[in-house]
Amino acid sequence: MSLIDLSRQVALGVDIGGTNTKFGIVNHRGEVLDKGNLRTDAYEKVEDFIDALYEQVYPLMEKHGTEKHFDGIGVGAPNANYYKGTIELAPNLPWKGVIPFAELMTAKFGLPCTVTNDANAAALGEMLFGAARGMKDFIMITLGTGVGSGIIANGNLIYGHDGFAGELGHTIVKPGGRKHWSTGSEGSLEAYASATGITITAKKMRAEFPESMLNQYPEEEINSKTVYECAMKEDPIAIEVFRYTGQKLGEALANFVMFSSPQAILLFGGVIKAGDFILKPAKLHMERNLLPIFRNKVKLVFSELDEADAAILGASALVWEK
Amino acid sequence: MSLIDLSRQVALGVDIGGTNTKFGIVNHRGEVLDKGNLRTDAYEKVEDFIDALYEQVYPLMEKHGTEKHFDGIGVGAPNANYYKGTIELAPNLPWKGVIPFAELMTAKFGLPCTVTNDANAAALGEMLFGAARGMKDFIMITLGTGVGSGIIANGNLIYGHDGFAGELGHTIVKPGGRKHWSTGSEGSLEAYASATGITITAKKMRAEFPESMLNQYPEEEINSKTVYECAMKEDPIAIEVFRYTGQKLGEALANFVMFSSPQAILLFGGVIKAGDFILKPAKLHMERNLLPIFRNKVKLVFSELDEADAAILGASALVWEK
Repeated sequence: MSLIDLSRQVALGVDIGGTNTKFGIVNHRGEVLDKGNLRTDAYEKVEDFIDALYEQVYPLMEKHGTEKHFDGIGVGAPNANYYKGTIELAPNLPWKGVIPFAELMTAKFGLPCTVTNDANAAALGEMLFGAARGMKDFIMITLGTGVGSGIIANGNLIYGHDGFAGELGHTIVKPGGRKHWSTGSEGSLEAYASATGITITAKKMRAEFPESMLNQYPEEEINSKTVYECAMKEDPIAIEVFRYTGQKLGEALANFVMFSSPQAILLFGGVIKAGDFILKPAKLHMERNLLPIFRNKVKLVFSELDEADAAILGASALVWEK
Repeated sequence: MSLIDLSRQVALGVDIGGTNTKFGIVNHRGEVLDKGNLRTDAYEKVEDFIDALYEQVYPLMEKHGTEKHFDGIGVGAPNANYYKGTIELAPNLPWKGVIPFAELMTAKFGLPCTVTNDANAAALGEMLFGAARGMKDFIMITLGTGVGSGIIANGNLIYGHDGFAGELGHTIVKPGGRKHWSTGSEGSLEAYASATGITITAKKMRAEFPESMLNQYPEEEINSKTVYECAMKEDPIAIEVFRYTGQKLGEALANFVMFSSPQAILLFGGVIKAGDFILKPAKLHMERNLLPIFRNKVKLVFSELDEADAAILGASALVWEK
């Protein structure tokens, strides 16, 4: 066993998003040796997508193949099921129904393939190479167009009995609250703390407060980026948009902490660019809703990983986690 | 290894409650060979309590000792910490501060001792001997004077980084809602779904509806038992008390399911005597708040274990779980 040269082992990490797919060849130290990307939404058929991916990856595998050993492929994708190797009913991907993705990849690449949802992959990446190094209990929350999550307990991802555990973005933070544009549920975390949720909050608040700087933008330009610009210029309404978002996030985080008592909660994704505008109220409302035994123990931190690499690292980490 | 005779191995299971402590000598099949109990609240000093327990247990150990081998002691107690072997700041126990309980037990009995919180012990008992046999992912909710929980993910209890995971009774189901009589938090599950919470709901509702049968009882007799009596006599207000309780419970359960995607949720404790009056609305509101991928998958069931034995079985299971 000790004769295996770890420096020679590499994995292919693939991160599939609704628009773009990124991939990289990653070694055990979390170094991305080579990377690339392609459009996800350009391929109506999943087989065509996999063929196009192979066309791009094959030359890189050839290039590194003489001195490296490819251990396998790890894939992070929305609605991916770790146990079944499938991508199921993903609303933001062009491929409908239940896709036996891992099987198709193995058939094409001749390598074992493991899939998991994108936030789980990010959590693994953080545990092996990022801000959660050495932690055995933490929760990763991705705040992007949607809100995703990956939960690590006792050093392992929680998959649940069916592989779908960790849908914290869809937990209800305000019963009977804002209706979610896609799921129809009322008052879910995603309805408030995603970029989409922030846009809704901003549009509501600027209508209520005509004096807000937010009213200087046309409707279609209102988003978390323009809210941030106004907040930086000290517009109190823009600041309130983030404060409210942080409050809802913090209330949800308190419940998550009392579930799995993590050492840290890592935040990741486009929304964290709002920085302290969201982080401070999130921390305040998390602490306020915690039992005393949990207070002032949980670190609330931003991801350390470069956003472009994080997903690829996380996906490749799947190969070695197995 | 195969020479070990499992039928000879026994453990001492101890369940410490605020008023009473129960103990039993349990074998690998979950059979209670002998049992007993003593008052917890009669001993101001924990050392005196342990001495008194020893006095009662020793003759039983002598009796079984010739043909059985005692593997260890498992203890379920409020605010017990698995990692540290302590009972910490338990508001309902006579012993204040941080008690090195496992250490004290080992010093007295000469056997290894493991402690965990009472709901965790109950969850282990269910996994090994009860309704959760063969399940690797489930959540146990104890609905008694308070609301406790034990979470099993991938076959293991979730302890969290500090041993305090699984305080689901204190998660917030209604932000800004009912103030908890002891923790001060607003809108926690325990404030609604515990026996204490049901009593509060019943007192409020009977004041609003003078025609309710609940008004035939003096104030001090209003509790989940009298509400049940009225509900059985079809008093609509008593039925509404349980329906509201079930709704709050169900809303909370939906969030738990989206966290760890359990195969089942097991309910246990005095409150479940209300049966379908609580179970039906709980199921309805759980399903209603779940993402479609989780719907109609999670069994919501009552514990199968005899209530008196369950805690002892669970505590003894700790010995073999290690």
